[in-house]
Amino acid sequence: MADLHQQDLTTMSQQYRTNFVNSLSGFKSANIIGTISNAGQTNAAIFSSVTHLGTSPALVSFIMRPHSVERHTLENIEQTNQFTINQVDASFIKAAHQTSARYSKDECEFAQVGLKKSFIDNFKAPFVAQSQLKYAVKLQEIIPININRTLLIIGEITAVYCHNHIIDKDGYIDIESIGTVAISGLDSYHLTQRITRLSYAKPHTSLIRS
Amino acid sequence: MADLHQQDLTTMSQQYRTNFVNSLSGFKSANIIGTISNAGQTNAAIFSSVTHLGTSPALVSFIMRPHSVERHTLENIEQTNQFTINQVDASFIKAAHQTSARYSKDECEFAQVGLKKSFIDNFKAPFVAQSQLKYAVKLQEIIPININRTLLIIGEITAVYCHNHIIDKDGYIDIESIGTVAISGLDSYHLTQRITRLSYAKPHTSLIRS
Repeated sequence: MADLHQQDLTTMSQQYRTNFVNSLSGFKSANIIGTISNAGQTNAAIFSSVTHLGTSPALVSFIMRPHSVERHTLENIEQTNQFTINQVDASFIKAAHQTSARYSKDECEFAQVGLKKSFIDNFKAPFVAQSQLKYAVKLQEIIPININRTLLIIGEITAVYCHNHIIDKDGYIDIESIGTVAISGLDSYHLTQRITRLSYAKPHTSLIRS
Repeated sequence: MADLHQQDLTTMSQQYRTNFVNSLSGFKSANIIGTISNAGQTNAAIFSSVTHLGTSPALVSFIMRPHSVERHTLENIEQTNQFTINQVDASFIKAAHQTSARYSKDECEFAQVGLKKSFIDNFKAPFVAQSQLKYAVKLQEIIPININRTLLIIGEITAVYCHNHIIDKDGYIDIESIGTVAISGLDSYHLTQRITRLSYAKPHTSLIRS
């Protein structure tokens, strides 16, 4: 550890700093958020900030940046109060990444990048047909984060679609087995290799591999 | 995709549901948050919710659950307005996971689990000596999320410590090269294998591997 160095954030160029700071949080989730406007225009956008917020109720959150391309996503969610979250797997990372381009409002990312829409169980927002783990989400709250004008979007999961065979008997879903990717930085995509699952930790008790 | 099935969240047992819902967001970051109380009691706790919030200023956030073991972390942050974030690598996942046990307030997780404290540049909160990418964070805001009584803790990154050789020339940090792990579900730890980095996406333009 003798060669650890302090990196000075203040002297970095903007692009360098963007890559650098985006690497600090560790590996990120890779999900496409699918939405639809009241007029029926569909939208798909990749997000790396989807986070587990709670189990009962089942809540997820993600961060919406200010003035970014994903504002179509926000407008649609505000109109319909719903969206889909679709895990990205290795088979469609290029299409998923391409959804981050600044398409105009009347261009549908699904068609532009080659993702197939799917509509399930009368849910209005579109799912990504290619995604092997996806769910319907009902908007619960949009919390403004004033310090940098981002928004925390919170939704409740109302229906989950995945293959039965990837669910372990304790409810854990083996997302590695379907090739779900992790992101680092802004643009690096990674497959994973499980080291182990570990048992519930208790004080003064040894962990076991479960 | 013909065998995708809807999973009914309402009929699951609590433990099954906890494992299931925790798997839905995708891969999560693995970080130990280090804190110290005004009285000098140090604390370390693993979190899987550390998220990039912004680049200028450099902000990170994480979710604090209500009434959970990590409340010592919260109390310390409220007292000192600072904390450290330390990426977890494969060489100390057992110790990192063990910090989630409900130790009493006067037990220091560092000593209990076998992590070594390190104090750098007069920052009061302790770093994890073993961690190869770690940073000092100054509390900016604690936002209550009323729907499930969690808290969003937001901090600004003030100093970053890592090996120079893992930083690419564009600022991207190769966290895979230091064995940083990703988490899935509550308790599964994963190494990663880079597929590719992809160029900045523009409409109607092909992506290249960078």
